[in-house]
Amino acid sequence: MDPKAIVLLSGGADSLTCLAWAAREKGWPCLALSFDYGQAHGPELQAARRAAQVFGVPHLTARLDPEPFAASALTGAGQVPKGRNPARIGRGIPSTYVPARNLVFLSLASALAETRRAERIVIGVNALDYSGYPDCRPEFLRVFQEALRLGTRSGVEGNPIRIEAPLLSLKKSEIFLLGARLGVDYSLSVSCYDPDPDGRACGSCDACLLRARGFRQAGLPDPTRYRSGVTPPAEA
Amino acid sequence: MDPKAIVLLSGGADSLTCLAWAAREKGWPCLALSFDYGQAHGPELQAARRAAQVFGVPHLTARLDPEPFAASALTGAGQVPKGRNPARIGRGIPSTYVPARNLVFLSLASALAETRRAERIVIGVNALDYSGYPDCRPEFLRVFQEALRLGTRSGVEGNPIRIEAPLLSLKKSEIFLLGARLGVDYSLSVSCYDPDPDGRACGSCDACLLRARGFRQAGLPDPTRYRSGVTPPAEA
Repeated sequence: MDPKAIVLLSGGADSLTCLAWAAREKGWPCLALSFDYGQAHGPELQAARRAAQVFGVPHLTARLDPEPFAASALTGAGQVPKGRNPARIGRGIPSTYVPARNLVFLSLASALAETRRAERIVIGVNALDYSGYPDCRPEFLRVFQEALRLGTRSGVEGNPIRIEAPLLSLKKSEIFLLGARLGVDYSLSVSCYDPDPDGRACGSCDACLLRARGFRQAGLPDPTRYRSGVTPPAEA
Repeated sequence: MDPKAIVLLSGGADSLTCLAWAAREKGWPCLALSFDYGQAHGPELQAARRAAQVFGVPHLTARLDPEPFAASALTGAGQVPKGRNPARIGRGIPSTYVPARNLVFLSLASALAETRRAERIVIGVNALDYSGYPDCRPEFLRVFQEALRLGTRSGVEGNPIRIEAPLLSLKKSEIFLLGARLGVDYSLSVSCYDPDPDGRACGSCDACLLRARGFRQAGLPDPTRYRSGVTPPAEA
């Protein structure tokens, strides 16, 4: 069966919520797509594979030459920032910015969507917590949608692939509440930018801080596995 | 030294002309970028490597998972059309369309450009002979440029990577005359969609027909190596 939607699945909490939204709320036959681009947080990819299995969704991990993405703290260039005030995350472009990442991911997902006749791409970008990343903003998604209309076969034939970003305007706590309603087990996900080889979280990178605050604000238990000696980050 | 321009180098005649334009006419320090995406015409990639060597330009071949690109005659899905009237090439989207190819290539080139601090990407798209490909049209390039302005670090910091398409409005004969003026040896290039393993051309696919007509109209000798028994295509 052709998939109806390609779901970009990093293995983090947001993309896991997107998978639940597409597969369970929308009921779309999905194909999950992950990318191995040399990211230091490889346990995310294992989490993505596990999550796709749990959802019974076919899963493809596409390997990318790591060289174009080398200028990021997530691929080994410099340190992942730790212990920042969550209220300040999202101001300015962080060192964890990966050059043109969502542009590349959406482009490859578009190629796969045309090849597999999928109508939609689902991406877990969020413009509130991650406004520091230019490729997580609504204006970027709008212009990318326009590129699909003008630059692909399906677009010029009048059926452009549609970009779905269901989390775009949600707070982290709202994302977790949506996932909880859809029965998501967030222990499947790895959000940390700097996990240990077993996928246990550092507790102090931006992604850990936002995640812990999200569970707290949602009034949900935090199922994150932290490294030994690390306690869940407290209120900032 | 950081390159000033990333040149997309397929190994065909157009991208070879672009390399000459960027390196010799503009004098930019270049980095040539090729993609191995499972294309049947692998000898093009060998041609790209050789051409970069001749120009003394560093060269990167990025391997891409072939699965997203599987729905094309260039990647093995169906037959490459042969013997078409050159005047009709460019009407409608041909079976040699590769899903979202230039979107993917430009996106990866953009990532590499940000990582290597290059200011420009040079691409050999041409809207006259290849108007059947949606991703070879000026309106697509314009919206991609806008995606770079809005969706990348360099863009939001006010220095978006610039897309250069010096061949966009040239006829094939004009492309060859430009190359001849810049000392390009077109025997280095492989245009054929269906070459033999030695890179010798079939003489009857769209790319062979347009190339032969271009040399003829430019009044230049055709240095193409054809398969044994094949003579250069005559006037249609």
